Amino acid sequence: MPRYKLIIEYDGAPFSGWQIQADQRTVQGTLAAAIEAFTGEKVNLQGAGRTDAGVHARGQVAHMDLAKDWDTDIVRDALNAHLRPHPVAILSAEKVPADFNARTSAIKRHYRYRILNRRADLTLDSGHAWRVPRPLDVQAMQAAAQKLVGKHDFTTFRSTECQAKSPVKTLDRLDVEREGDEVDILASARSFLHNQVRSMVGSLVAVGEGRWSADDLQRVLDARDRTACGQVAPPDGLYLMKVDYP
Amino acid sequence: MPRYKLIIEYDGAPFSGWQIQADQRTVQGTLAAAIEAFTGEKVNLQGAGRTDAGVHARGQVAHMDLAKDWDTDIVRDALNAHLRPHPVAILSAEKVPADFNARTSAIKRHYRYRILNRRADLTLDSGHAWRVPRPLDVQAMQAAAQKLVGKHDFTTFRSTECQAKSPVKTLDRLDVEREGDEVDILASARSFLHNQVRSMVGSLVAVGEGRWSADDLQRVLDARDRTACGQVAPPDGLYLMKVDYP
Repeated sequence: MPRYKLIIEYDGAPFSGWQIQADQRTVQGTLAAAIEAFTGEKVNLQGAGRTDAGVHARGQVAHMDLAKDWDTDIVRDALNAHLRPHPVAILSAEKVPADFNARTSAIKRHYRYRILNRRADLTLDSGHAWRVPRPLDVQAMQAAAQKLVGKHDFTTFRSTECQAKSPVKTLDRLDVEREGDEVDILASARSFLHNQVRSMVGSLVAVGEGRWSADDLQRVLDARDRTACGQVAPPDGLYLMKVDYP
Repeated sequence: MPRYKLIIEYDGAPFSGWQIQADQRTVQGTLAAAIEAFTGEKVNLQGAGRTDAGVHARGQVAHMDLAKDWDTDIVRDALNAHLRPHPVAILSAEKVPADFNARTSAIKRHYRYRILNRRADLTLDSGHAWRVPRPLDVQAMQAAAQKLVGKHDFTTFRSTECQAKSPVKTLDRLDVEREGDEVDILASARSFLHNQVRSMVGSLVAVGEGRWSADDLQRVLDARDRTACGQVAPPDGLYLMKVDYP
């Protein structure tokens, strides 16, 4: 059975997250239904990142095994036809070796968090960014973010529902960039804890608004205490951008 | 009566264009209702660009006179409160001299047209870009676009409904840029004819797909004949980005 790697884009707004659940509209469930409509097979589609309800993807990756050796352009186009009108699309499909695993083979995951730093309500970006009305000091956010880069116990920035065995993760990149009203936070790591990016973003916004200093952020990291965390940023602004493989 | 200049953002999808019309949901009509709800005044709001149905704005400009000398932050915030839940927002309000006119004082208008050049259906960008599945040769499009820059009779690229007195316009800029799957076309001029940007974009896509050469584009421009025009690009990808004043 040939194995296929899919690169997937979706608008997370109408979905209860990636992971398939009974009686819920999920991205994984929507994809499984499209695959079954195409080939008649019930597949176990495994994704690189289990994005939460409302979180978007520009480059989610998943793998699946199909009975037949299809042309990959046909797999992409047929799945896209069966996915309509759901806001999920297959950007590419390719054949991969049988030992490729979208989740466990991944060596780096890249997330982007979009903030619109303005008073006015969102129009074109509604549901696709977090509006923060108070002016953000991006230099202070960038400096504070560097306290989180590296290998740390991220218990403070981890959902109480997180199922990872260890709270210790290595954060490779956490950069804060402004272009006009838009403030983007770019996070890269081999893997993240549940709600880690949104928890870090919420705390960085506390720094940007002047409510916390970089030392405060260091203190809450060192506390290894979920209750020390600032607000968790809403899912609207979060995008799984890309997953790297060897 | 103090005069106010507003910078306005909107998602054009749910509107029958900018211009107020009886029994139609328009951006101008939605703004007039919000202003009346705020001050009780029926104002004659004049916009810099009469965008068509479905066309978006990141920086539309309009002016209006109000009886009272309001703080401009209050004008912005109060209008935004009254505009909810419509996808129209006031980015800024400022006081301007009585001879300022959003339409006639404008010295340059900047439009962006967003194309997503890919097979997959749009998800996050649905309604906000034009999907063109055939690969586009951006270098050929950029070279051909330069045939349109400068002072020309743009009859070919003008809607038959256009009410401008003369079809002669000076196009200051027409650039085609690619970043990944996205191809953006940037157009700047003092003023445009009705449907001019979408008509130029449709013809440039014919060049990008290899159906037309740059010489073909020159020929249709020289023809001064609306029927020589290529397809008109859909409104989804068009954004009024910015209007310059002296």
